[in-house]
Amino acid sequence: MFYHDKKLQYTVRVDRPDPCFARMLQQAIGGVEGEIRVMLQYLFQAWGARGPAKYRDMLLETGTEEIAHVEMLATAVALNLEGAPSHMQEQAAKQNPLVEAVMGGMDPRQYLSAGMAALASDANGVPFDGSHVYASGNLAADMYANVTAEATGRALATRLYHLTDDPGMKDMLSFLIARDTMHQQQWLAVLEELGGHQGVLPIPNSFPQELENQDVNYSFFATGIDGIEAPTGRFTSGPSIDGKSAFSVRKVTPMGEEPRLAPPMPEAHAQMEQMAGGVSPTQTASQTAERLGVTPKAQSNKANKTR
Amino acid sequence: MFYHDKKLQYTVRVDRPDPCFARMLQQAIGGVEGEIRVMLQYLFQAWGARGPAKYRDMLLETGTEEIAHVEMLATAVALNLEGAPSHMQEQAAKQNPLVEAVMGGMDPRQYLSAGMAALASDANGVPFDGSHVYASGNLAADMYANVTAEATGRALATRLYHLTDDPGMKDMLSFLIARDTMHQQQWLAVLEELGGHQGVLPIPNSFPQELENQDVNYSFFATGIDGIEAPTGRFTSGPSIDGKSAFSVRKVTPMGEEPRLAPPMPEAHAQMEQMAGGVSPTQTASQTAERLGVTPKAQSNKANKTR
Amino acid sequence: MFYHDKKLQYTVRVDRPDPCFARMLQQAIGGVEGEIRVMLQYLFQAWGARGPAKYRDMLLETGTEEIAHVEMLATAVALNLEGAPSHMQEQAAKQNPLVEAVMGGMDPRQYLSAGMAALASDANGVPFDGSHVYASGNLAADMYANVTAEATGRALATRLYHLTDDPGMKDMLSFLIARDTMHQQQWLAVLEELGGHQGVLPIPNSFPQELENQDVNYSFFATGIDGIEAPTGRFTSGPSIDGKSAFSVRKVTPMGEEPRLAPPMPEAHAQMEQMAGGVSPTQTASQTAERLGVTPKAQSNKANKTR
Amino acid sequence: MFYHDKKLQYTVRVDRPDPCFARMLQQAIGGVEGEIRVMLQYLFQAWGARGPAKYRDMLLETGTEEIAHVEMLATAVALNLEGAPSHMQEQAAKQNPLVEAVMGGMDPRQYLSAGMAALASDANGVPFDGSHVYASGNLAADMYANVTAEATGRALATRLYHLTDDPGMKDMLSFLIARDTMHQQQWLAVLEELGGHQGVLPIPNSFPQELENQDVNYSFFATGIDGIEAPTGRFTSGPSIDGKSAFSVRKVTPMGEEPRLAPPMPEAHAQMEQMAGGVSPTQTASQTAERLGVTPKAQSNKANKTR
Amino acid sequence: MFYHDKKLQYTVRVDRPDPCFARMLQQAIGGVEGEIRVMLQYLFQAWGARGPAKYRDMLLETGTEEIAHVEMLATAVALNLEGAPSHMQEQAAKQNPLVEAVMGGMDPRQYLSAGMAALASDANGVPFDGSHVYASGNLAADMYANVTAEATGRALATRLYHLTDDPGMKDMLSFLIARDTMHQQQWLAVLEELGGHQGVLPIPNSFPQELENQDVNYSFFATGIDGIEAPTGRFTSGPSIDGKSAFSVRKVTPMGEEPRLAPPMPEAHAQMEQMAGGVSPTQTASQTAERLGVTPKAQSNKANKTR
Amino acid sequence: MFYHDKKLQYTVRVDRPDPCFARMLQQAIGGVEGEIRVMLQYLFQAWGARGPAKYRDMLLETGTEEIAHVEMLATAVALNLEGAPSHMQEQAAKQNPLVEAVMGGMDPRQYLSAGMAALASDANGVPFDGSHVYASGNLAADMYANVTAEATGRALATRLYHLTDDPGMKDMLSFLIARDTMHQQQWLAVLEELGGHQGVLPIPNSFPQELENQDVNYSFFATGIDGIEAPTGRFTSGPSIDGKSAFSVRKVTPMGEEPRLAPPMPEAHAQMEQMAGGVSPTQTASQTAERLGVTPKAQSNKANKTR
Repeated sequence: MFYHDKKLQYTVRVDRPDPCFARMLQQAIGGVEGEIRVMLQYLFQAWGARGPAKYRDMLLETGTEEIAHVEMLATAVALNLEGAPSHMQEQAAKQNPLVEAVMGGMDPRQYLSAGMAALASDANGVPFDGSHVYASGNLAADMYANVTAEATGRALATRLYHLTDDPGMKDMLSFLIARDTMHQQQWLAVLEELGGHQGVLPIPNSFPQELENQDVNYSFFATGIDGIEAPTGRFTSGPSIDGKSAFSVRKVTPMGEEPRLAPPMPEAHAQMEQMAGGVSPTQTASQTAERLGVTPKAQSNKANKTR
Repeated sequence: MFYHDKKLQYTVRVDRPDPCFARMLQQAIGGVEGEIRVMLQYLFQAWGARGPAKYRDMLLETGTEEIAHVEMLATAVALNLEGAPSHMQEQAAKQNPLVEAVMGGMDPRQYLSAGMAALASDANGVPFDGSHVYASGNLAADMYANVTAEATGRALATRLYHLTDDPGMKDMLSFLIARDTMHQQQWLAVLEELGGHQGVLPIPNSFPQELENQDVNYSFFATGIDGIEAPTGRFTSGPSIDGKSAFSVRKVTPMGEEPRLAPPMPEAHAQMEQMAGGVSPTQTASQTAERLGVTPKAQSNKANKTR
Repeated sequence: MFYHDKKLQYTVRVDRPDPCFARMLQQAIGGVEGEIRVMLQYLFQAWGARGPAKYRDMLLETGTEEIAHVEMLATAVALNLEGAPSHMQEQAAKQNPLVEAVMGGMDPRQYLSAGMAALASDANGVPFDGSHVYASGNLAADMYANVTAEATGRALATRLYHLTDDPGMKDMLSFLIARDTMHQQQWLAVLEELGGHQGVLPIPNSFPQELENQDVNYSFFATGIDGIEAPTGRFTSGPSIDGKSAFSVRKVTPMGEEPRLAPPMPEAHAQMEQMAGGVSPTQTASQTAERLGVTPKAQSNKANKTR
Repeated sequence: MFYHDKKLQYTVRVDRPDPCFARMLQQAIGGVEGEIRVMLQYLFQAWGARGPAKYRDMLLETGTEEIAHVEMLATAVALNLEGAPSHMQEQAAKQNPLVEAVMGGMDPRQYLSAGMAALASDANGVPFDGSHVYASGNLAADMYANVTAEATGRALATRLYHLTDDPGMKDMLSFLIARDTMHQQQWLAVLEELGGHQGVLPIPNSFPQELENQDVNYSFFATGIDGIEAPTGRFTSGPSIDGKSAFSVRKVTPMGEEPRLAPPMPEAHAQMEQMAGGVSPTQTASQTAERLGVTPKAQSNKANKTR
Repeated sequence: MFYHDKKLQYTVRVDRPDPCFARMLQQAIGGVEGEIRVMLQYLFQAWGARGPAKYRDMLLETGTEEIAHVEMLATAVALNLEGAPSHMQEQAAKQNPLVEAVMGGMDPRQYLSAGMAALASDANGVPFDGSHVYASGNLAADMYANVTAEATGRALATRLYHLTDDPGMKDMLSFLIARDTMHQQQWLAVLEELGGHQGVLPIPNSFPQELENQDVNYSFFATGIDGIEAPTGRFTSGPSIDGKSAFSVRKVTPMGEEPRLAPPMPEAHAQMEQMAGGVSPTQTASQTAERLGVTPKAQSNKANKTR
Repeated sequence: MFYHDKKLQYTVRVDRPDPCFARMLQQAIGGVEGEIRVMLQYLFQAWGARGPAKYRDMLLETGTEEIAHVEMLATAVALNLEGAPSHMQEQAAKQNPLVEAVMGGMDPRQYLSAGMAALASDANGVPFDGSHVYASGNLAADMYANVTAEATGRALATRLYHLTDDPGMKDMLSFLIARDTMHQQQWLAVLEELGGHQGVLPIPNSFPQELENQDVNYSFFATGIDGIEAPTGRFTSGPSIDGKSAFSVRKVTPMGEEPRLAPPMPEAHAQMEQMAGGVSPTQTASQTAERLGVTPKAQSNKANKTR
């Protein structure tokens, strides 16, 4: 279970409020690389953790930290929006200062729906979407998902760093960027504990590898047409990363046949022309009627109607 | 640009059609771990690739391969649904055999919306969602995203392997599982080429690391209340994974203050009780009216209405 | 900021695991009436709270409690899914026991995507959607949103109560239902503090009410065609709920005119027949060409092509 | 069933077209507080109404009114967009006037997808989402949902009022704000008819209240860590709002235990290290192979491949 | 504006309630081929109609009719769900009859969220999505969108016809199928009024056709690799459908070059290895620091931390 | 299966990069009228094609072509974003040039999430949504869906043509507009092959038409209230489009009755007042308790609590 403190994990200070930057910060709150996502991702991984309790505990620790990050960012959004009214007062001569503020890059819903506060959405106003909460039940897959979240999250935070000149905001981002640095290391440290590439791969490592197709599991498939040279690199020759085989290159050719599906079943009501053997409308109608257990009436629509 | 062959990349054979398995396969087509996602993810990474052309080329090669995987799975769905009608004919005595087939675990939209074919949706009928296409512009972040996709994708494929006894389906999955093995290796090989952990971390490695907060970038934060012992492991002591510092543990305490937001601006129309200084409804109304440039009329609703 | 305890807020015990009930519980986790929604709703309301600090504090208290409810439910899902394998072993004779379990009402993604654990989705597998996080910036509107969440949430929990015979699950639901009882009271208590209906209405109470149309603000509009009698009740006569006017009934008639939009602007490329004055294709093409600043070439497609 | 009139319910007049305001109005059409939502919400509540016919009738009356509100707003959007072309003509010197109009705050899809007309989306272009249609089958819960919709809807309309100086638009909003006033009263009047707080609470009032946990159903839970003082108010002491008990405060402590999930089942393919008892890869592979009924081949990938 | 009648447009009678069929009917309510979609589609087309008023009027007529169809289907869902409880009473001996009903193919949210009534969702519980409301501002494009909606809608209704044996339900579907027949004709009749293929094509017909590339506008592109024969048909030779040219076949070859993007801009924080000219980490960091206007401190993390 | 070429299908050249236009182009990539949609739509139609192989082949040809169109547009987005940094350098004096660029109409996620590249989203940042992939299993319905996609797609492309003055971009759009022209013809040519209106209608033509209601299948329903004159046109009189009947007009009147639903079942926990016969809370509680098999305790909350 959970407890709270009224204070923030780290200082959130806005020296020059900027409603446009308030919109940008939404990406770090409700975006796919954002903090609601990692908060829920680490917590759901903890709550479904099977196996050594240590990893459950660790996920709970960091998941709890992330709630505080959402709080910091939501506070930063609210503080950046406080500039809007004063900014508007300065522009008293203009006809619609709020309209201009909103139009000039703010998220209009921060005003219209939230009354000048943060939303659970991204920088384009797209609501947070729970399908980004990765918790696969496989610890190694989850650790890679977490490294990805922290890598894209740190890239996002460094980009936000360029969109503000506010010293308070830069200081807050400097903190969040540092935490992303640590968290990248943290999930990779777990992968090292699990044995590194040799121990971890292929994920999941509990499926009998001899059941996978042995001809294509360490080959780079080149899909370019004739004349296109395949790229070469660490992934085309030499020992495989898991040390279990060696990389090779194979020019792709069809190993399968042209698929041939059966004609449609009558109840799916394709067009008659899709039925096998060129059935006529009348044939199909009577077949369907038979299946339906009804006596087909004479198809005399036109006669009945055009009188 | 792209070309096609009528033949499949690998044989798709269904010996005993199973409409329920056709639903399960949808997760591998339109799910978050599915093939539409990796197809688009690798192609969008290629189309936005900046830097060495070799990685663009590689992403294009494998993105093209993934289109063929969607094709194989969509074909497998269609073939598994062909069992439905014949199965129904065997159950001719029953009143509503198709209803029972649909109810017994099929995705009803495979019949209702697609006439017995695959959808661009997951195993619960949730449509494919483009926000899962990760292409961050940072090659290392993208490689980790790709390892994640192939790790969760291989876990999915091994689980599907347990949901079928059909030799044809097991053979197809054996092929797809093998390709996921290769693709995990492939993206990790790129990370090795980029210098491994020491060269790659922290992602992005082009942001001046001295700008991040130097106090918290290699510390594990313990968020348990008093009495909760923090977990220990590779991530709590010893050299950091990037070799640039050392791990430490810190019990979390607030470094920030309790946030205090300004009172709401009048145009946001909070309740009056949220305004500073305990303004009365009349005060607020006249303030707003003043801003709106209108002369407040006497607030005489009740007198006017209750006559 | 936030802290955690390893223990749960309340006991979660599953005596007879039931994978089907695990699916039902998802509605209380990721559904529109679920606990992720109230957790985020109360926290976002707190983080954007303007005005008396007391309400911010209160929202933080209860928002933190709700995180623990998500945890309890996610744990309950995981425990209910543990029955699946043992159940399967009992059915060893059957060909595909896991398929049957999945088909028999389980959420297939709890297995396929989560390896037998909870998802951030509802009972139909639809991912949690952040647009349900209501935090309007108006305290009274938010309190009604919160009562709604707890009323639909308690209705959901009582319905779940009927879907299980497991004593442990009934005990957990009995706890959650009780908390919903309290939370309904809690939000209504705030509305009472704010002055009850007379003080709170109409929401927002900071907009000068004389600016709203005075003819229709306390009238029930009857939209039935001639011959349909309007319903009568507390809402059709007598003093209005806010005590500021009296209810009346009005048979609806158009107060506006038939709308007439201008013809389409050329750049929107409607069909030519939608343009005013019956312009011909040639006229339109040359008008557009003129705007585009190009010299229209002779429209000689056919001649060029059909040779 | 339904009928229409060509005329609007109330005059929609735009004196100075404003493409930016056309974007803002989208929130009132397709947003979570918008009119498509209340239209469908009241109609679905009517169509599923069980119990006294009077409430079904009332919901049908008001649901029908709301269709006319969507119509008014969609018309207002189209009229506001008619300014765009003339505005553009005035700016004939500039290179890309339409681009500037679109960039200057318009919803680009009003032009690109709708040819200068309204969309079924919100102010950020997020499509209307049917999950916001609350119709719980419980009349009291639904009435609170309806009050919420009209409270957030009226807050939205008053905010829109500040974003325009157009007399016609202000007049239309003055009408819609007035209707929201009435509708707030209307749903609260039903709750009064149902017995007010004493009769209605806890919602649903048909669940035997003695089945809920009697220790925690009227207690405010304080979740602050030591040193955080809980807020006090109407919700922490005195009689409960339903008059059935009294409020109290309780400092939260865990009533449950630390959860312990079983090890993963083999078919879920966690990493081997998550299995109980530290099984080795080989053990797991053979266990799985046994379950799969296959004879494990020698794991000789490397030998086969690295030649 | 709109009016209602308490009676339904057509009789809705359920002789043998069937909770499973209640789920299937959801596709016709909230699915992409469903009635909420066509209701909103025709109304939004009407509300944004520019050009001859006749088409606006027609769309309003039929849009209003469709509201009544949603009503009929929602009523049918509610009536089909009334079987659930009685069915449950018959199964009094079983432990969890409601669970079995829910598991046996019902949409669980019809019970959990709606208390045995219809939802604004499809047969898989996916909420109605406003992005399917096509109203392009081009009358011909909209008419084709409407034919599509009625064609897929009629296919859906005929498929539903096979999923029920209930005479009342078959009668209701027989009515809806007939209306879809009429509506297909209706939209095609408008296209005939607009001049048929010769007058209507290419859509939009108001764009100067000489501005489109004249080499490829009537050619079928064959994308098969060497050895794949292109299909032949009405679309590969002979006069084009619009009578303005003739069809031809062209084997596809690249007309463009290999794209070469510039190196990433520093503020986007790609990995350093993606920068041009093989810059080192130090170079990039100092470049960025320079842009940021900060003095880079010595990169002495390790020294500081590992003490 | 599929192959690729490194070259583009057609030249993509950007003479004057424009980050705002890069946002607009997103609609053609991930919008409902965009190229990801048609790519997947034609491929899914091919992969589920039943009946004559020729149509499968044709769909595969054109679906493959559309992948190349997504590639062209994604490349165009990346090239248009390359202007941003140089533009920023010119504005070196301004404080936050990137902020202004982002605010001035760019999609912020093209920078924040993609590092200056394309997303799988539309012009408002809404992710691509797989539910727009129409593949109904009925060839005629699908052909109309394809005409719609190409008609709205061509309208979109012609509108984009007006939003740019860049010769390279106009040239690329001229190519895409031409392909849309061809594809409109192509799908209509298939409908002609299938027999034109007489052969194709009503879709699906395999359902026995005598099973549809014969009274209303060729009647235009006028839903205006008294005094509203119905529009007249090709759709109100004369032979029907399919030649099977004749159009007529009918003023709509209810053919059904007022629906009467049964009282709620106890387990759905409506409010007691919704139960039949005016049951009291105590009655309902004991009924429910009886069903639940528990002995109702005395309802003595208040006594217990208010001490």
